[in-house]
Amino acid sequence: MFDFKVLSRDKKARRGVITTDRGHEINTPAFMPVGTQGTVKTLSPEDIQRTGAEIILGNTYHLYLRPGHKLIEKLGGLHRFMNWERPILTDSGGFQVFSLKGLTKITDDGVRFQSHLDGSRHFFTPELAIEIQESLGSDIMMCFDEPPPYPSTPEYLRKSMDRTTRWEERCKKARKNPRQALFGITQGGTDPALREESAKQIVQIGFDGYAIGGLSVGESTSLMLEMAGLTATFLPEDKPRYLMGVGTPEDIIGAVEAGVDMFDCVMPTRNARNGSIFTSHGKLNIRNSVHIDDPRPLDETCPCETCRGYSRAYLRHLFSAGEILGLRLNTIHNVTYYQRLMSGIRDAITRGRFAAFAEEFRRETAGIGSQQVI
Amino acid sequence: MFDFKVLSRDKKARRGVITTDRGHEINTPAFMPVGTQGTVKTLSPEDIQRTGAEIILGNTYHLYLRPGHKLIEKLGGLHRFMNWERPILTDSGGFQVFSLKGLTKITDDGVRFQSHLDGSRHFFTPELAIEIQESLGSDIMMCFDEPPPYPSTPEYLRKSMDRTTRWEERCKKARKNPRQALFGITQGGTDPALREESAKQIVQIGFDGYAIGGLSVGESTSLMLEMAGLTATFLPEDKPRYLMGVGTPEDIIGAVEAGVDMFDCVMPTRNARNGSIFTSHGKLNIRNSVHIDDPRPLDETCPCETCRGYSRAYLRHLFSAGEILGLRLNTIHNVTYYQRLMSGIRDAITRGRFAAFAEEFRRETAGIGSQQVI
Repeated sequence: MFDFKVLSRDKKARRGVITTDRGHEINTPAFMPVGTQGTVKTLSPEDIQRTGAEIILGNTYHLYLRPGHKLIEKLGGLHRFMNWERPILTDSGGFQVFSLKGLTKITDDGVRFQSHLDGSRHFFTPELAIEIQESLGSDIMMCFDEPPPYPSTPEYLRKSMDRTTRWEERCKKARKNPRQALFGITQGGTDPALREESAKQIVQIGFDGYAIGGLSVGESTSLMLEMAGLTATFLPEDKPRYLMGVGTPEDIIGAVEAGVDMFDCVMPTRNARNGSIFTSHGKLNIRNSVHIDDPRPLDETCPCETCRGYSRAYLRHLFSAGEILGLRLNTIHNVTYYQRLMSGIRDAITRGRFAAFAEEFRRETAGIGSQQVI
Repeated sequence: MFDFKVLSRDKKARRGVITTDRGHEINTPAFMPVGTQGTVKTLSPEDIQRTGAEIILGNTYHLYLRPGHKLIEKLGGLHRFMNWERPILTDSGGFQVFSLKGLTKITDDGVRFQSHLDGSRHFFTPELAIEIQESLGSDIMMCFDEPPPYPSTPEYLRKSMDRTTRWEERCKKARKNPRQALFGITQGGTDPALREESAKQIVQIGFDGYAIGGLSVGESTSLMLEMAGLTATFLPEDKPRYLMGVGTPEDIIGAVEAGVDMFDCVMPTRNARNGSIFTSHGKLNIRNSVHIDDPRPLDETCPCETCRGYSRAYLRHLFSAGEILGLRLNTIHNVTYYQRLMSGIRDAITRGRFAAFAEEFRRETAGIGSQQVI
C-alpha cells in the first residue's frame, strides 16, 4: 500500500519517506530525474541508481506517441521496458499537450491536439490519461489537468480551474488499479484566492498526494514560491506535496522551506548536455577554454563516477570533439549534484538546521540558478 | 619488460599472451576496440572492461590535432587522461594522414598534410610520430609507414616499400623510452615478392612485434588473407603479429588460421551506432520494424549488460527516438560479441579444434561479414 510518513519537521520543511505499493522507499524531499522517452537521457538505469535517485519521472505524452502505451504494456510495463525496477512517477501528459503548437481545441470533454512527431490527430481525456498510465504501470500516476498559460485573465483562470477539478474527479473515477497511487494537481495560477479554492476542491476529492501545478511557467521566482507556499498551507500534512517542473537548486530550497516534498526538472540533464555543470561553488561551462588543461575534477567535493575518474580538461576535450561519453559523464555529475543537494536538505531538516543550510548554500553558490561562475 | 609467449598452437594458429612493460596481460589472438579521440565511442572505460577487452587502440593523428599530445602528456599521459589504466596501442598516424584529401606532399623526409578539422598545415615525420606516441605514453607504439593506395603500380609499390623501411629505421632510432614497445609494419601491397622482401627488411631492423599493413584497403578478402598468410611466414615465431584494420569476424578467423595474433577495427563500434548488430546467428539491424514488439534480447547466448537487461523492442525504440543510451547499449553488445569471438578462438586453439570452430562459425553465421539476416 502506498504510504507517506513525515519523519521530522524543521519549521514548515518536512523530511519524510514514501513507501510505494511495490515496497520501494523514497526519501523526501526528493528530486526525480526526467526520463522523457523511457530513458533519462544519456543514462542507463545503473547510472541513475548510482546518482542516488530513488524515483524517476516518465512522460505519458511522449510514451503514448512513441512507442505507444499498449506496446509497453504488452512488454510488461514501463519498469521492465526500460529495465528500471525502482519507482516511476508518470505525468498525465497534460503539460506537454497544452504546450503544443498543434493544439486544436480544449473542451470540457478533453483536448484535441496534433502529434509533434508526425502531425497525427489525437484526443486526450482524463479517462485516457489514466488508461495510459495504467498501461505504463507507474507507481504514481498524475491526474489530467489544465495548466493555464501565464499570464491568463481572472476569468480564464477560474474557468480552467473549475474544469481541472471536474477532470480530476473523472480521473479518480476512471482509475482501475488501486496499486498505482494517484496524485491530484492543484491549479489557480497566481491568484491567491483561486489557489486556495483549487487546493480545497482537490483535497476534497481526495488523493494519495497533491501536486502544485501551473507554476514555473514564466512568473517570477518569488511569486512562484509565494504561490507554492500558500497552496501548501491548504494541503494535508499526511500526504506528499509535489511542485511540478521545479527547478533550480535555489528554487528547490525555497520550496522545501515552504513545505514541498517532491520535485522534477530537466535542468540537471539538459544543462549537462549543453556543458553547463553544477558545482558546490556555482556553475561552470565545460566548453570554456579556461578548462583546457585543468587536471581538476568538476567538483572536488563530489563522489560521482565523473569526478572520481576524469579531469575538466578531458571533459572539455570530449565536448569539443562531440563525443557522446562527455554528455553522459556531465549528466552523471549533474544528477548526482541534485541528489546530493536533496540528501543535504534531508539531513539538515533532521538536524533542525535547515535555515542555516539554506543560508550557507545561498552564500556559497550565489546565483547558481541564473549565473555562471566560469 | 614487454614479452610475448605462444602458449599453444593449432596448425598455424597461435594462442599466446603478451605482457606489457607495465605488467598487464593481453591474451592473443586479441581484438582491440578503437578509441579514436581518447574514448571508444559511447563507452566509458568501465564499459570497455566489462566487454572483456584487454587493450584498446588510440589514434595518434586525431590526438595530435585535438587536444594535442603535449596537453595529454602534461595531464599525465593518455591512460590517465581517458581513465583507462590497461594497455593502449597507438597507431603512427600514417594511415589517417595518407587517407586525407588535404594531403599535399610525400617526400623521403615525411608527409605534409592539412588538418581535417581546420585546414591547418602540418608535417609528419617518423621522428614526430614517435615523439607523439611517447608523449601519449602508449604501451605499444607503431612505426610510421606509408600504406600505398590500392591498386598501385609495381614501381610505386617498390618505392613506397623502400621508403617505409627507411622510415622505420628512423623510428627505431628516434625512440627514447624503452618501456614503450615498438612494432614494425610490413608493406608490399598485393605483390608476393614485395611482401616477402618488406617482411625480411623489417624483421632485419628488429622490433617487439610486427604488423601486416596496407591490407583491407579495397582488395578482395581472399587476396587479403593470402597476403597476410604469406607475410606471416616471414615473421619470427616469438613475436606478436598484428593485422591492422581487420576486420569482419570471418576475416579475423581467416587471419588467425594464417597465424595472426592481433586485430583492430571500427566495425563493432561503428556498426553499433548505425543499428547493425552482430549475433551468434548473423547480423540484424535494430531499426528494422520486425523488432518493434520483440521481447527477446539481441542475442540469447550473450552475457553482456545489454542482453541481460533490454529487449530488441526497447533498443529499437531508443534508436527510433534518437536516444544516446541506445548507441551505447548497441556498442556494448557488439564489442562484447567481438571479445567473445576472440575468447572462443583462443579456447578452440588451446583445445586443438580451431578448424572445427571456424567451420561451425561459418555455418552458423553464413555471410555475417557482408549480409544481414534481419
